[in-house]
Amino acid sequence: MENTTGNDGTTKVNDGSIDVSGSALRNLSLKTPKGTRDHGPKAMAIRQRLLNQVIQVFRKHGAETIDTPVFELKQVLTGKYGEDGKLIYDLKDQGGELLALRYDLTVPFARYVSMSNISTIKRYHIAKVYRRDNPQSMRGRYREFYQCDFDIAGTYDPMLPDAECVKVVCEILHDVGVGDFTIKLNHRKLLEGIFQVCGVPADIFRNVCSSIDKLDKTPWNDVRQEMIEQRGVKEETVDRIASYVTLHGGLELVNQLSEDEQLARIPRAREALQDLRLLFQYCDIFQVANRISFDLSLARGLDYYTGIIYEAVLLAGDDKALSVGSVAGGGRYDNLVGMFNPKRKQQVPCVGVSIGVERLFSIIEARSIATVRTNATEVYVASAHKGLHLRRLEILNKLWTAGFKAEHSYKLNPKLLDQLQHCEEFQIPYAIILGNDELKRGFVKLREISSRQELEVTLDTLIEELRRRLHAS
Amino acid sequence: MENTTGNDGTTKVNDGSIDVSGSALRNLSLKTPKGTRDHGPKAMAIRQRLLNQVIQVFRKHGAETIDTPVFELKQVLTGKYGEDGKLIYDLKDQGGELLALRYDLTVPFARYVSMSNISTIKRYHIAKVYRRDNPQSMRGRYREFYQCDFDIAGTYDPMLPDAECVKVVCEILHDVGVGDFTIKLNHRKLLEGIFQVCGVPADIFRNVCSSIDKLDKTPWNDVRQEMIEQRGVKEETVDRIASYVTLHGGLELVNQLSEDEQLARIPRAREALQDLRLLFQYCDIFQVANRISFDLSLARGLDYYTGIIYEAVLLAGDDKALSVGSVAGGGRYDNLVGMFNPKRKQQVPCVGVSIGVERLFSIIEARSIATVRTNATEVYVASAHKGLHLRRLEILNKLWTAGFKAEHSYKLNPKLLDQLQHCEEFQIPYAIILGNDELKRGFVKLREISSRQELEVTLDTLIEELRRRLHAS
Repeated sequence: MENTTGNDGTTKVNDGSIDVSGSALRNLSLKTPKGTRDHGPKAMAIRQRLLNQVIQVFRKHGAETIDTPVFELKQVLTGKYGEDGKLIYDLKDQGGELLALRYDLTVPFARYVSMSNISTIKRYHIAKVYRRDNPQSMRGRYREFYQCDFDIAGTYDPMLPDAECVKVVCEILHDVGVGDFTIKLNHRKLLEGIFQVCGVPADIFRNVCSSIDKLDKTPWNDVRQEMIEQRGVKEETVDRIASYVTLHGGLELVNQLSEDEQLARIPRAREALQDLRLLFQYCDIFQVANRISFDLSLARGLDYYTGIIYEAVLLAGDDKALSVGSVAGGGRYDNLVGMFNPKRKQQVPCVGVSIGVERLFSIIEARSIATVRTNATEVYVASAHKGLHLRRLEILNKLWTAGFKAEHSYKLNPKLLDQLQHCEEFQIPYAIILGNDELKRGFVKLREISSRQELEVTLDTLIEELRRRLHAS
Repeated sequence: MENTTGNDGTTKVNDGSIDVSGSALRNLSLKTPKGTRDHGPKAMAIRQRLLNQVIQVFRKHGAETIDTPVFELKQVLTGKYGEDGKLIYDLKDQGGELLALRYDLTVPFARYVSMSNISTIKRYHIAKVYRRDNPQSMRGRYREFYQCDFDIAGTYDPMLPDAECVKVVCEILHDVGVGDFTIKLNHRKLLEGIFQVCGVPADIFRNVCSSIDKLDKTPWNDVRQEMIEQRGVKEETVDRIASYVTLHGGLELVNQLSEDEQLARIPRAREALQDLRLLFQYCDIFQVANRISFDLSLARGLDYYTGIIYEAVLLAGDDKALSVGSVAGGGRYDNLVGMFNPKRKQQVPCVGVSIGVERLFSIIEARSIATVRTNATEVYVASAHKGLHLRRLEILNKLWTAGFKAEHSYKLNPKLLDQLQHCEEFQIPYAIILGNDELKRGFVKLREISSRQELEVTLDTLIEELRRRLHAS
């Protein structure tokens, strides 16, 4: 099935397949598409808990939610992602429009804002996006994965929305509890100012940005070589760039750069440094300034950023300096909405953040023990012996009517042991056990699964007793 | 952009476009793909409330949830949907596997059960599916739409899982509150028995089923003609079929058919009638038998059904006989899981139901008034005059730290009227209004938005006061 040329030709850490022995299966390979996977009940329970934590923070900051189609007109996505545009999934031309699966949630959001003539909105959007990347499951990367985006669109005063995005990231990473983290922060206009000072021609700013962006994974010497050999930047220029992009620090570095006479001559560099000072001030009030690392090597790959950019990285437990990877990222993109409607007079400036939930899932999943509950059943209705299925259905119906989450075996005469094992496996707190002797007297047995304690309850008081116990726990 | 031949050539009630005046827009048409749409905050708020109601019922019946990729290997979907298979969206061959967007959630579920070697599972799955249908927005049909499926897989005793699916549909439609409804019910094996009795050749059972399936929208004479002219069924046979498929009723009709001597000779017809009797008995205990209409014209389009089939239809308010369309449907499919792994000894029989939430959304959306809240903000922090933005940030941070959902204007010096209007528009219950005079004395104003009542609260007691008020409401 696999074509070994082109993008699919390299390492296949995870191709989603399960080994199906025998070739007699009518040529049907039983697998999910390369780079994708199913999520079973346990994984989903963990995912939903995490997503709920993320949503809680988004809503705490007043966000609404929207949804957009999983595919867009191809032309909506074209030219928005720089070199990564080649990873877009196209749909087959089946006679109609040319379509492609969304690559992120930001471009569809900008298309939505423009198309709906919205001037201000604060929204979150949690949905899957698609990239024909080479899946490296070891690093938590897939071709289909969730993004959780929070964006603020509107013409506002500098850094007030930007600071709130940084705060949102900090609250989420705190609430999720994945340990210590840092928010790396930089400014696209400062980078551009630096490139100008160093003598980079304006038409290759973006290319140089793409090279700089690799610095978190690639040593400086390799990036240097790329700039010289592939981007055609002069050696002297590259070395001047190096003297800047190796800097990182806090507010004191912002102040130090403000005294750089060459930068001071470039308006956008001055503007960027002013933004950064303001952002530090607001983040200080929000009690997250200590999380920020102003890092001039941060460039972010995407074309559309125009201002502040940031990336949250987890710090390994023992060695704070060792990053275990990016778990959130974003920045300001003031011109994207306008690209969809050049005739519209007003731009809609935006800033946002995307939470890397897939990486967070992997971390949480790896340390989750067997105790994740996958269903919410409160009461299981069991038979102690044969011939009681109609009574079971009666009592079930009574429980459902009273609003309880209840289930039973779909076998007429299940073994009692099997029924109780089901309760233990699914951590169902209570079982009601029916037996002819008790039923004749108007009683049933109520069993607490965790303690295995049983008591007799009359049919009349059963609902009340369950309500009392479940409410208390 | 549109090709007017083939599948796209007919009525275009909704093609997702917004009229963009002027042709100078670099040829960029600002629209969502044909048959798709964005959902703004208000639509999403309504959708999420409805989906939560549906999920609550699924969880009340003990279901877990799973997720599968939005696309599957093309061959997984091939041959599962009969004539509708032509509506599948294929992905472009970009060098790799041949993929297609999922057409429903049932086939991916069966693929998952087979691939994961699962023998029993009760799961729900809420996700979007894709069909290259001609969108008819008037009937609530789109090319991208949500399905909400609940399925029970496992080898169990007859009709126990099936009856619970019927119960689940009834609870959901009751909880959602869309008025009166009926569950039309039939049995694939009974239909096959009838076809056999009437003299339909076995190899065209499915085709005749497809014709019968149109009876809810097409008059008998047209269906009759189709069977004779396109399916090649004899006139005499068609008229015998008519004498059966025009029947509908309750348990008495099951009993009446049990006395049909010709049907009695056909084992699968006997089996079907026995299933139906049992289902009526269980549904009676579940207090939903009065909802059921045993209807011999119900056939369901999909190939994979093997037993009980059902469809929920809403009844119009004034004329109970006038159906306003199907809002749920499903049935038993005992052979689908096995199709993915013919070597596996054991089949995994399944029964399930799919809730037609898109139609429910349309109904609820149409009657929703302006009062839907789209965010969850509890407190808005406002400035009465200029120069207070830093104090606003301080108080905001205090509120967030205390767990409140709080926001403010992203303008340094917003007008008080604009801030209060924002609160009213978004139905935020409380505003805190900062002013220099009050702040100097250690006070802020707390305004209840609905009543416009204001009182002064000290900064020290603000959190406590808000907690008391929000907890009480």
